[in-house]
Amino acid sequence: MDDILKDDERLDYLLAESLRIIQSPSVFSFSLDAVLLARFAYLPVRSGKIVDLCAGNGAIPLFLSARTNADIIAVELQDRLADMAERSVRYNGLENRIQIINGDVIGIAAKLGYEKYDTVTCNPPYFPAQGASEKNLSEHLAIARHEIHLTLEQAIQSASELLKQGGKAAFVHRPGRLLDIVTAMRANRLEPKRIRFVYPKEGKEANTLLIEGIKDGKPDLKVLPPLYVYGSDNEYTEEVRLLLYGHNG
Amino acid sequence: MDDILKDDERLDYLLAESLRIIQSPSVFSFSLDAVLLARFAYLPVRSGKIVDLCAGNGAIPLFLSARTNADIIAVELQDRLADMAERSVRYNGLENRIQIINGDVIGIAAKLGYEKYDTVTCNPPYFPAQGASEKNLSEHLAIARHEIHLTLEQAIQSASELLKQGGKAAFVHRPGRLLDIVTAMRANRLEPKRIRFVYPKEGKEANTLLIEGIKDGKPDLKVLPPLYVYGSDNEYTEEVRLLLYGHNG
Repeated sequence: MDDILKDDERLDYLLAESLRIIQSPSVFSFSLDAVLLARFAYLPVRSGKIVDLCAGNGAIPLFLSARTNADIIAVELQDRLADMAERSVRYNGLENRIQIINGDVIGIAAKLGYEKYDTVTCNPPYFPAQGASEKNLSEHLAIARHEIHLTLEQAIQSASELLKQGGKAAFVHRPGRLLDIVTAMRANRLEPKRIRFVYPKEGKEANTLLIEGIKDGKPDLKVLPPLYVYGSDNEYTEEVRLLLYGHNG
Repeated sequence: MDDILKDDERLDYLLAESLRIIQSPSVFSFSLDAVLLARFAYLPVRSGKIVDLCAGNGAIPLFLSARTNADIIAVELQDRLADMAERSVRYNGLENRIQIINGDVIGIAAKLGYEKYDTVTCNPPYFPAQGASEKNLSEHLAIARHEIHLTLEQAIQSASELLKQGGKAAFVHRPGRLLDIVTAMRANRLEPKRIRFVYPKEGKEANTLLIEGIKDGKPDLKVLPPLYVYGSDNEYTEEVRLLLYGHNG
């Protein structure tokens, strides 16, 4: 294991025991939101091209690889996170299906090609840039969570530039940004088609938003059934266990 | 009863037995959506001024009168519907609290006063104008349901013109129009603050949207817990029975 893990990194399970992912509490660990997005997005199943933007330690591309045989490119700005993702891909023997690009999401279509992709997923930084310094986060966590190097609008623009006509972009964010997301999506030819709100438990306000748009699609928005994360027993609901582990045991 | 009811009109119950409303299957009957909106809207409780736009046969102002002592003005374009609403108000002895205006929602602030009101509610026509003629509806139903004399944008503009700074506008509509609603609200200084999606039952897509905005409010959108109309037994859920009847019996 010495050549795979660095510093305080761990090798955690993904999807029960079929995949592993390198994580670190001080650098980056994937969140439930990444799992929900990887499950929410429509994917080309047998072939096609997928890009994951803001890939972090690669949780979304790893999850996606279990759902599709399409080629997956994952873009991550931070060297350290891209390196973790790269090592996880190698550990799982997925080098032929997942390519990690250590680069900036802004302008990425100039490198990867305009209008060539079927699906783009993106779990962008959620929080305003100005709050980051007050929170005493490591630089890695600050950049991943705050709009320091990438705004929501820039992420949406890059997604649109990558997508073919009819291609699908799926994002996860906070419900408080719903209006900003749909405004930026429409401004970038991504017509919102499916929204799902995630509630921490019954009776609470939604705390997560999953949204998918189609490039140059016709207006026809569907609001899917709500997803509850925790049951009244404060354990994951059956639906979330299925999404996380592939079974509800 | 002869002086109260005309043609095929009935005198139906509202809120169990405490209020009555004149309805007619061929002219207009209130929908569950009107009830949900009347319950969803924040109201000034002891005093203040409320306007209901697109009042139909007056269901929303009648429901609101049970929740507030504020003065309520109800605006309805169609003579016949305004007349039904007027007679229902008299039947219930609410002439001092509810005023029915038979007039056009477009430009109504020029009559009622700009920026004078605390709350505006509106259950506007949901469907595009062009579909109305194909559906063989009575003219009354066509005008109430289709955007023949009033578009969504015009309804939102009138609501904003009536409201004080900090006043609240609440609308009910179809989820497919969410993006049009929030775009028009922001264009008219109504910042969306609360959204609630209504689902016919668990596992189904939402079919109704409740949304409230504050005039010149700060961006801070909350997505409330979902509301389910029917349970697995195909009867109204306990929450809907409470909203409809004031008790769950």
